[in-house]
Amino acid sequence: MLNTARRLLLGSPLPSAEEVHQRLTKAQALAVFSSDALSSVAYATEEILLVLIMAGPAALGLSLPIALAIAGLLAVVATSYYQTIHGYPSGGGAYIVAYDNLGVWPGLIAAAALLIDYVLTVAVSITAGVAAVTSAFPVLYPFRLVLCLLAIACITWANLRGVRESGTLFAIPTYGFVLIILVLIAVGLVRLTTGTLGPMPAQGIPATEDVTQALTLFLILRAFASGCTALTGVEAISNGIPAFRTPEAENAGKTLIAMAVLLVTMFVGLTALSHSFGVIPVEHETVVSQISRHVFGAGPFYLALQVATALILVLAANTSFADFPRLSAILARARYLPRQLTNLGDRLVFANGVVALAVLASGLVVIFGGQTHRLIPLYAVGVFLSFTLSQAGMVRHWRKKRGQGWQWKAVVNGLGAAATGVVLLVIVATKFLRGAWMVILLIPGFVWVFHAIKRHYLNVAAQLSLEGLSPEKWAGLASRKRYKVVVPVSGMHQGTLAALRFARSLSKDVTAVVVDVDPQVTDRMQEKWALWGHGVPLVVLESPYRSTIGPLLAYLDAIDQQEPEKELAMVVLPEFVTAQWWQDLLHGQTARLIKRALIYRRGQTGKDRVIVDVPYHLRQ
Amino acid sequence: MLNTARRLLLGSPLPSAEEVHQRLTKAQALAVFSSDALSSVAYATEEILLVLIMAGPAALGLSLPIALAIAGLLAVVATSYYQTIHGYPSGGGAYIVAYDNLGVWPGLIAAAALLIDYVLTVAVSITAGVAAVTSAFPVLYPFRLVLCLLAIACITWANLRGVRESGTLFAIPTYGFVLIILVLIAVGLVRLTTGTLGPMPAQGIPATEDVTQALTLFLILRAFASGCTALTGVEAISNGIPAFRTPEAENAGKTLIAMAVLLVTMFVGLTALSHSFGVIPVEHETVVSQISRHVFGAGPFYLALQVATALILVLAANTSFADFPRLSAILARARYLPRQLTNLGDRLVFANGVVALAVLASGLVVIFGGQTHRLIPLYAVGVFLSFTLSQAGMVRHWRKKRGQGWQWKAVVNGLGAAATGVVLLVIVATKFLRGAWMVILLIPGFVWVFHAIKRHYLNVAAQLSLEGLSPEKWAGLASRKRYKVVVPVSGMHQGTLAALRFARSLSKDVTAVVVDVDPQVTDRMQEKWALWGHGVPLVVLESPYRSTIGPLLAYLDAIDQQEPEKELAMVVLPEFVTAQWWQDLLHGQTARLIKRALIYRRGQTGKDRVIVDVPYHLRQ
Repeated sequence: MLNTARRLLLGSPLPSAEEVHQRLTKAQALAVFSSDALSSVAYATEEILLVLIMAGPAALGLSLPIALAIAGLLAVVATSYYQTIHGYPSGGGAYIVAYDNLGVWPGLIAAAALLIDYVLTVAVSITAGVAAVTSAFPVLYPFRLVLCLLAIACITWANLRGVRESGTLFAIPTYGFVLIILVLIAVGLVRLTTGTLGPMPAQGIPATEDVTQALTLFLILRAFASGCTALTGVEAISNGIPAFRTPEAENAGKTLIAMAVLLVTMFVGLTALSHSFGVIPVEHETVVSQISRHVFGAGPFYLALQVATALILVLAANTSFADFPRLSAILARARYLPRQLTNLGDRLVFANGVVALAVLASGLVVIFGGQTHRLIPLYAVGVFLSFTLSQAGMVRHWRKKRGQGWQWKAVVNGLGAAATGVVLLVIVATKFLRGAWMVILLIPGFVWVFHAIKRHYLNVAAQLSLEGLSPEKWAGLASRKRYKVVVPVSGMHQGTLAALRFARSLSKDVTAVVVDVDPQVTDRMQEKWALWGHGVPLVVLESPYRSTIGPLLAYLDAIDQQEPEKELAMVVLPEFVTAQWWQDLLHGQTARLIKRALIYRRGQTGKDRVIVDVPYHLRQ
Repeated sequence: MLNTARRLLLGSPLPSAEEVHQRLTKAQALAVFSSDALSSVAYATEEILLVLIMAGPAALGLSLPIALAIAGLLAVVATSYYQTIHGYPSGGGAYIVAYDNLGVWPGLIAAAALLIDYVLTVAVSITAGVAAVTSAFPVLYPFRLVLCLLAIACITWANLRGVRESGTLFAIPTYGFVLIILVLIAVGLVRLTTGTLGPMPAQGIPATEDVTQALTLFLILRAFASGCTALTGVEAISNGIPAFRTPEAENAGKTLIAMAVLLVTMFVGLTALSHSFGVIPVEHETVVSQISRHVFGAGPFYLALQVATALILVLAANTSFADFPRLSAILARARYLPRQLTNLGDRLVFANGVVALAVLASGLVVIFGGQTHRLIPLYAVGVFLSFTLSQAGMVRHWRKKRGQGWQWKAVVNGLGAAATGVVLLVIVATKFLRGAWMVILLIPGFVWVFHAIKRHYLNVAAQLSLEGLSPEKWAGLASRKRYKVVVPVSGMHQGTLAALRFARSLSKDVTAVVVDVDPQVTDRMQEKWALWGHGVPLVVLESPYRSTIGPLLAYLDAIDQQEPEKELAMVVLPEFVTAQWWQDLLHGQTARLIKRALIYRRGQTGKDRVIVDVPYHLRQ
């Protein structure tokens, strides 16, 4: 029954042979890999304004220079990643580049930063996407948390079924979003210069408690740090190079340039419009929605942009649902994470990683009340840490490789590393108290966990290893005479008989034991034993505290000591299996509890024990 | 580790021999058995007022005649139960009386009504107790739901440890409450008649949306029905007769009369005061708190009453924590509920029943937002249904027994049954839409479940029965030659060797199987097999969908058919056991999943299968 539900929900299993990779054209790849980066223009401008507004509306004018500075930074980062693409044509994620070139610890730090980042990408994108929807439909605003969780559930479901990164499917929302934003900027700028559109009317209370701060350098840097979320996702293309058509690296490089140009245009354009219109960030409507409504009016164009924004943000979240399970699987294969994360489920997806990401992201969304701007201070730390490590790794890479013009390449990546490193410091300094501290504590925490897991696996491998053992020694068999067979019984029925018969076929040394929880039952048992026991002795164990397991374990320990010539105790458990799962609730789980206790608690003498389960199936 | 925590929390196990029953004096018994009934005066008046206020403040004057009518009803019910006490001196709960005299179905209906009622008693008492606290400390009002859940958790904890119904412990809050209420009524009446205390000033908005209804007969009946919650718990003494000192029935009868007199005095007195002071029910303060603050002022007397109210209500809830598990255990012993409910835990309490009650009551409190008056419409239905059935049963009882003056006794009980039956109809009619429908649906639902559970147990007993089997037939043993032993392996390590050696000692027909999920691992396995396999064949099972369990089950089915001469397949599973529980999370649960699948899915040919677990303990 469970299986049928599973089939309906997730589809039939896919054979391993179907795991093929589609090659993408540049246009398709742009859609697939840049949704994360491009979608950030939906909230980046707003995050700058939300900081500046604290120093009063006049300070909002600084948003344009800040956006231009971020655009400059983007140019540096994009150039640096252009080189990474050519240096690691097989795909150079921050973890791989840092691990290869800087060593284990920087690699693990990058991995921790990336994992945290993927979770935050989902949380931020989904909350921002829901904000786009509730801006258009304010009636949904009170339900934003539920909408966020529903959206995550849908993406999770799609990924458990296994969405292929289909270029054509992804192209519609991504290009739709880009197109409408570009039209919006163009129309807005034309109407501004022709004077047919003035500043916006006042929009009510700004979305901040406090508009009386001084416009300090710290505040400006904080606004810059908040705006840097525009750069998240820029690295995606460099991870995905193998998905491009040949020549892979060249095509990927061109796509990266196209993405950077689009991103700068949209981000600076939107910031310029918001500045010219005097947009003030408010709680119930996003800045982009305000601009769009001002330029287009509340018509079909406006609605189309809100829908496209929500869709591209969902795609951005979806990117993490591909990346997080993949990186987890890589780490798990290297034994830094639980090995279950390497299981390719029956739909050819790393299902455990997908579920883990969904749970973590949902948790974050709930904790932060579904508010994008509360999540932002946590967001950029991981991104810029992995940028810095990855580009620093590239510097080492060029130094080791020393191809043609390697010095020049090393300088470009070094510049990138330095720029992102400085920005990282700015982000940490300006957002530490607002939440960045959590990420800064979590990253070493993750690294410690990675390390502890690896140590455990190495430990287990050493304990299980056959190294130094001689096959001859294991060739000998214990005599069955040295097996002691114990059959715990609780009542005289067909299940008991089956277990008893089986036990007697294994050894001559069989003892049945009954734990005396209910004297009446025990008496009846002993009466019937004469007829059905077939010579097997029945031992009654006292149980002053009415526990079944305690006396049984004590008895096994006692026979271990009393009969040292016995090598091993076999415990044969009769267990009847109900015909329907719900009937299971009507029967004590004693057999199951005994099994658990026997497996987990080793006897005092350390003798081996074997647990034998004799199921007896009920027909109805 | 879990065990230590358990000891600390719940105390050491108690031996069965310690299960003794304390005998109570009349004064102690009054405290133990009447907290439920007496505590209902904390909310009964308020519930009447909450209905009447819908027809405007003028309608509140009807509260006094309604209270007097309820007092009359109480006299009838108490007289009727006085007779039950003498008719069932060993304890006559509604289930037993109805079952004995009216048959199985009425008995089960009474049982269902009682179980529902116990849950509601907890929910209503706890929410009312918390209301007493938040009336005195309005700052706690927003946290009332959390307070309710905390209170339930504390009572649950105390009952899992096993509180004895200690007369002296219970006496303090019960008599404290009674005393202060009586003082309150006396002082209030004296000051009223001497004219030193006038009506209360207006208290703000009444706690209802709608004060414009007409004062119809329906509304008056609804107010009456709401006030009938004052009668809940009256039956408690008749259930607890064996706990009285000899002569039990006589002492219990006298205690019942004392309780009825106290209850009537307090209920009518409080209603009279609320009427004279013109108390209007408001949301944030209970009616009793308003009266008390008006009479005593916000001093120590006022505070003492609020504390005593909260405590007696906690005791009332605690009563259900004794009754619900006891009735569940009785029903479970008769096979109408899961048999786990009969387990006397290591602290001599029916722990499963206690936990079930806590979960159900907490759920109710959450669903109804911790508001007493929302729960009230559900409350009285079960009480009056069990009253009616129990007293109707008593009529049959006297008719069957025919002792001296049996006709007179039958008439008294018949009157009681008729009166409570009519009130039941009034309650159902006036509160049906406000929530009573849930209880009316639940009761037949419960009865159906009781019946289904009983049928299942009878079914299982028939399937397991030894009736008609001959012990001689079971004396014969299967030859071990007819056992097929299969060892699923996933890697070559010491755990595998241990399992393999054990399997080889059991039979000559041993086959190892490896499911080919990862070709690399399979190859390595096959290489090592030559050295370590000791002649056991290794079969590689294809797994196109990467599942381990599917191919294994298919293989077992195949050998069942290919080797019909084999009687039984033994599956020997190597399982390594980690040294720490958390390490378990780092290992796939494959062995456990295989065990489950083998136990629950029977082979296609219906041949028996035995699962053998060979644990291999890791040292660290």
